[in-house]
Amino acid sequence: MRCEVLAVGTELLLGQIVDTNSAWIGEQLAASGIDSYEHRVVGDNQTRIVAALRDLLSRADAVVVCGGLGPTQDDLTRDAIAELMGVELVRRMDLAEHIAAMFRARLRDMPENNLRQADVPAGGDAIPNPLGTAPGLRCPVGDKVVYAVPGVPYEMQEMVTDHVIPDLLRRSGESACIVSRSLKTWGTSESALAEMIADRVDAQTNPTIAFLARGIEGLVVRITAKGATEDDARALVEKEERELRSVLGELVFGVDDETMEHAVLARLQARDWTLGVAESLTGGLIGARIVNVPGASDVFRGTIGAYATDVKRSLLGVTASSVVTEDAAREMAEGARRVLGADVGIAATGVAGPTEQDGVAVGTVCFGIALPGRPVESLSWRLPGDRERIRQFSTISLLNLLRQRLDGLPS
Amino acid sequence: MRCEVLAVGTELLLGQIVDTNSAWIGEQLAASGIDSYEHRVVGDNQTRIVAALRDLLSRADAVVVCGGLGPTQDDLTRDAIAELMGVELVRRMDLAEHIAAMFRARLRDMPENNLRQADVPAGGDAIPNPLGTAPGLRCPVGDKVVYAVPGVPYEMQEMVTDHVIPDLLRRSGESACIVSRSLKTWGTSESALAEMIADRVDAQTNPTIAFLARGIEGLVVRITAKGATEDDARALVEKEERELRSVLGELVFGVDDETMEHAVLARLQARDWTLGVAESLTGGLIGARIVNVPGASDVFRGTIGAYATDVKRSLLGVTASSVVTEDAAREMAEGARRVLGADVGIAATGVAGPTEQDGVAVGTVCFGIALPGRPVESLSWRLPGDRERIRQFSTISLLNLLRQRLDGLPS
Repeated sequence: MRCEVLAVGTELLLGQIVDTNSAWIGEQLAASGIDSYEHRVVGDNQTRIVAALRDLLSRADAVVVCGGLGPTQDDLTRDAIAELMGVELVRRMDLAEHIAAMFRARLRDMPENNLRQADVPAGGDAIPNPLGTAPGLRCPVGDKVVYAVPGVPYEMQEMVTDHVIPDLLRRSGESACIVSRSLKTWGTSESALAEMIADRVDAQTNPTIAFLARGIEGLVVRITAKGATEDDARALVEKEERELRSVLGELVFGVDDETMEHAVLARLQARDWTLGVAESLTGGLIGARIVNVPGASDVFRGTIGAYATDVKRSLLGVTASSVVTEDAAREMAEGARRVLGADVGIAATGVAGPTEQDGVAVGTVCFGIALPGRPVESLSWRLPGDRERIRQFSTISLLNLLRQRLDGLPS
Repeated sequence: MRCEVLAVGTELLLGQIVDTNSAWIGEQLAASGIDSYEHRVVGDNQTRIVAALRDLLSRADAVVVCGGLGPTQDDLTRDAIAELMGVELVRRMDLAEHIAAMFRARLRDMPENNLRQADVPAGGDAIPNPLGTAPGLRCPVGDKVVYAVPGVPYEMQEMVTDHVIPDLLRRSGESACIVSRSLKTWGTSESALAEMIADRVDAQTNPTIAFLARGIEGLVVRITAKGATEDDARALVEKEERELRSVLGELVFGVDDETMEHAVLARLQARDWTLGVAESLTGGLIGARIVNVPGASDVFRGTIGAYATDVKRSLLGVTASSVVTEDAAREMAEGARRVLGADVGIAATGVAGPTEQDGVAVGTVCFGIALPGRPVESLSWRLPGDRERIRQFSTISLLNLLRQRLDGLPS
């Protein structure tokens, strides 16, 4: 089974927005064992949409078209698919009623144009859109198929997950269930991680193991298994997960959508401990990441972004003569605990650049961790990259250190 | 002149990374008056790269190929272009020496494989790469041309700006110079802004005016002019900029690469004032944005991320009974000034969701601004969107308010 992706939108060609949908769809296809050899972007031009669909279908079994389903005259995906099929568009009254109902629910008048979204090429089906007005389309073209989904990412994602992928798997005669799980890791290099799991990657055909570099979100090891039933597939994933975890150990900080801040907050919550932060080079970024997690208020007391040296002294009680030292980081972590009334205090100070500071090189960072009933720990690292990267890596590295220390405590 | 974009890399098809290069190149082409009707992504497969190039060149004058110039056996762009041209690859000793020198400068051994990057299709030219080892390529195909550039964004951008675009303009016989400037705005809706400038957009052919929605970076109005000389083009841009500014007024916060945090820090620096922040729902994000600007330390004292209610009271001196009120925001702004020893204090408190808090609805935010010698100002807004969007919009909206207040003061 081979399925290509066609994104439609002049704004994509002009670089006014970046096409993230095609990559997302590509990832879902790959995870489902469906090949995808080409992604394309064309503008809002019916002739070119039709030509692209025809060309892609000449080599593939299916195409997912993304975008061009809106209500305006620029939205031509429906018309292009009808032209490709050699049929007329038919207005479906049930879809028109759904669209009108969504407008009524939002207390807004419906422009007449919006009824265009109820048009379906004769012989095609609509794919329901619970999150927006534009239904998707599933249209046979000979023995092949074109799916049309909206360009709005969350609407598109719901349709691809719930309808397009299952339909493709049905068409491929693939009766297997597919289950996938991502192990998220932090703390080693891409090449070292690849080497650690190389044997298992090479040995496997089911489950398969893929390796994704997600930058600041860590390195991801994705396990994908096929089974006759979902339980069979899940059992294969879980067996492989145990194998991989025995190799990767504490590098794994979470699975699937869990972020580093989730991992840290869950561990603190389990001990009923609160957290305070003191940060310098990151300027508030550590706090900002922590409050990404809904419910952070049960654990997170706050952050002191002490950027100026004398604020570190007056507010956090730093006495170390240089403020980019392990001593300073230790005092900042203690200060965060005391000033914010927290059980646990963490701190980061360092030089993000672009120039060195008081003779300390760019990329030098010092971390402090103050846990209840233990001496305050401090250590320093040298991080690569530019200002932005140093700040981002400082943030996630400090949170990861805290995670590891919490895991090392007696439960 | 029509130029398409081909991105090469299996990791793009698999969604392991998102292709941002094609959008960037598309934006540069559009700004230079060069048409681009199609972007494509194919994997690391020589047959498919050649087929895509041939197909794209059948309709266009030029193609920019991005990626596949690395040193490994997966990097096939050079081979594909040679196949398309029907020529051999020739190893260029001057390029080999440049590559070896870059390795020596980094004190690293050069794997033999890296010399593949010195191979150029016979009849083609190399494009210098001052930032990396892989040179780009400019290769004639009949009366058309293929440019190859690396997938590393900053290497690619330098080559496209300095070599590809000027070469395309030369080939198009376009002797005009093109100058472009972006006016960045904040504070109105996309449709309202479009309406404000609709007359000028419709009336113009040189300069042209384009409208880009950049989400959290604001709405951008881009002016692009052609002239016989750079001075002529610049004069046209400046004339239009004056016209647009008279319509847009204080909505414009910066030009080109200037961010909102740049705008605010520059105004504070001009008055020799320092800044302190108190933030609740944003958790540190306001501080984190401010320290994005190199040299922020001249102005920025720090931020108090007072997430817990009793931290707002103990550290910032908030007495208001509810902490999501204009009174609380006012006290937080005063507290930030006092505790951080700053000339100017700003504060944000609110409910980011997902659920309401003490009867206050999700999206409610209160801002405080304390300027020297003036009563502390406070106001409240209702922002749309989810948790992340509310926090991001709170951050930039508060910074924009401060910018407008500073502009309103006697100089």
